Amino acid sequence: MDCIFCKIIKGEIPSKKVYEDELVYAFNDINPMAPVHVLIIPKQHISSVNEVTPENSAVISRIYEVAAKLASELGIAESGYRIVSNTGADSGQTVFHLHFHLLGGTKLRFEMC
Amino acid sequence: MDCIFCKIIKGEIPSKKVYEDELVYAFNDINPMAPVHVLIIPKQHISSVNEVTPENSAVISRIYEVAAKLASELGIAESGYRIVSNTGADSGQTVFHLHFHLLGGTKLRFEMC
Repeated sequence: MDCIFCKIIKGEIPSKKVYEDELVYAFNDINPMAPVHVLIIPKQHISSVNEVTPENSAVISRIYEVAAKLASELGIAESGYRIVSNTGADSGQTVFHLHFHLLGGTKLRFEMC
Repeated sequence: MDCIFCKIIKGEIPSKKVYEDELVYAFNDINPMAPVHVLIIPKQHISSVNEVTPENSAVISRIYEVAAKLASELGIAESGYRIVSNTGADSGQTVFHLHFHLLGGTKLRFEMC
């Protein structure tokens, strides 16, 4: 498995970790698009939302629990933030390991296309 | 409770429903930002991601299962799509009932701010 995010989880590629539990890993995006830009990922390799099924979806709930907790810790719970998951070419997904962008610390652009 | 999305769920305000189960309701956004623009919401009133806790988070997993299913049915699973949840002023959240934008059918803008 040659997945960059799997390697980050295993520590084979360095990352600025902000959170970890048995299901989830979170780290600062290497090319931040906002003052706060954290990637929250499942430890299990799921390639995209297209592969989310009732059998593997429990981790998604955990990811949102973690997002709420991190937003509070990072000081953006009140000012606001966006959680984004991209799937496939039209969205600009570049790494095919499911990930959730937590973006905040500035006014975010409303238009999406 | 004077929540517009709670009223949509109850049928007190009309909507173009695309999916419903015991936990989740989905309907076409009244002001679409993309050719496909569906809002997926929990039937339970949760005001934003800030209020997501281990006690109420199971619905988030269901929402992503539904998103994957709808993306397939609406023909955007392969071309790509984005799922967005906005919290608070910096993100442009306007309705304070947790909702997930499912956007696709066109190239989506990568920049977020």
